Amino acid sequence: MNDNTQPVFILVNPQMGENIGATARAILNCGLKQLRLVAPRDGWPNERAEATSSGALEMMHPIQVYQTLGEAIADCHHVFATTGLTRDVVKPVHTPEHAIQQTYSYIEKGQRVAILFGCERVGLGNQEMALANNLVTIPMNPDFSSLNLAQAALVMAYEWSKLTIQAKSIFLPTGKSEIATTENFARLFDRLDKELFDKGFYRVPEMKETTSRNIRALFSRATPTEQEINTLHGILTTLSSMRIKK
Amino acid sequence: MNDNTQPVFILVNPQMGENIGATARAILNCGLKQLRLVAPRDGWPNERAEATSSGALEMMHPIQVYQTLGEAIADCHHVFATTGLTRDVVKPVHTPEHAIQQTYSYIEKGQRVAILFGCERVGLGNQEMALANNLVTIPMNPDFSSLNLAQAALVMAYEWSKLTIQAKSIFLPTGKSEIATTENFARLFDRLDKELFDKGFYRVPEMKETTSRNIRALFSRATPTEQEINTLHGILTTLSSMRIKK
Repeated sequence: MNDNTQPVFILVNPQMGENIGATARAILNCGLKQLRLVAPRDGWPNERAEATSSGALEMMHPIQVYQTLGEAIADCHHVFATTGLTRDVVKPVHTPEHAIQQTYSYIEKGQRVAILFGCERVGLGNQEMALANNLVTIPMNPDFSSLNLAQAALVMAYEWSKLTIQAKSIFLPTGKSEIATTENFARLFDRLDKELFDKGFYRVPEMKETTSRNIRALFSRATPTEQEINTLHGILTTLSSMRIKK
Repeated sequence: MNDNTQPVFILVNPQMGENIGATARAILNCGLKQLRLVAPRDGWPNERAEATSSGALEMMHPIQVYQTLGEAIADCHHVFATTGLTRDVVKPVHTPEHAIQQTYSYIEKGQRVAILFGCERVGLGNQEMALANNLVTIPMNPDFSSLNLAQAALVMAYEWSKLTIQAKSIFLPTGKSEIATTENFARLFDRLDKELFDKGFYRVPEMKETTSRNIRALFSRATPTEQEINTLHGILTTLSSMRIKK
């Protein structure tokens, strides 16, 4: 099954089934469903992969297994190889973000894109990188770079999800209430001003305007909801009350 | 030890030592060295955490352990709580990218930022989120969102590394050679043109200019190095040779 709407992730000579399952789980989290394996050491299917996939393997397109990388990428137009090291090969090296942006635009044109990950121990070899058009290096801490297979796949898949899963960079969920209108916001603080004035809070009259504005600024930054404005009215009523509850 | 140059990651009630170690490994990959634990289920230190950290725990600042979240964040100015669900709390919800951009600007101002992760089973509770100023939700596949602790931490830490670990979005490593000058590039293709012309390749003379330009465009896209230009000269010499090697 070939799905032309997203890249194909290919694990080349993966060793541990656990890592295959964890990779499947990581990429499905980001909406990716196409995983191919080249000569997995312990064969396929693999019980340990099932266990660590948390059910991902069943929800993805069936895993495709190949004997050679050449066969696995035969139907692909573009091949990105992930590598942690700069090797002796003159090919463009991309950041994950840039590689996935290119991937996205290739897929928009109907072209198939593969993203390769090497085996856990040694990564991709020179022969394998020779089959790729492009390299991808995840920028890492130079003193400690030991990203595992599933984590490297997650970084690439996460960049894909950023382009495809819509998310507002920031929003305020207000539940059943709505953000208060400026009118209701102003009414609360007009009331507060009056209470404070009546009770002698503004000892220096010329400071009243500034202080009043600063109090409003504090609450304005919090963008209160109608419900919160009502709560504040309740607090004001309670605090202003002469009654002492015993 | 407090390091004001980067955010503090805080795991609240983490259960499995393996996940603590994997989280340490994931964030140190991105250059982050400050990890705090709130009431880890199996105590601290933890042998399983050591094992899965791949040596990260020893390279980070000493892990700080607290009994309550309140104590763990006491010295922080801003607290971001990661959560997969929209809860009944009116606080701004950020994408990881936006949360880390804010984190970066707070840290530039000398303010300390904490990023909270809940326990594996249930995430952060409402009481814990009440202690945060902001929420962070990682945009995920709505049909399958089962990011584990270390992976959620990796996404946040990776966004940090994108802001702090310099990487060119794309570059071409040319090894010991350099990209060929336009003069050397042109000399090769002038020579090719002449050879092709002499041997009758251009049967339709008026197509010569277009074909010649298209051949140059193909090689130009590859931006060859001086060494590659020399190799191409060698190929041209060999192919044009009358000698047949036996």
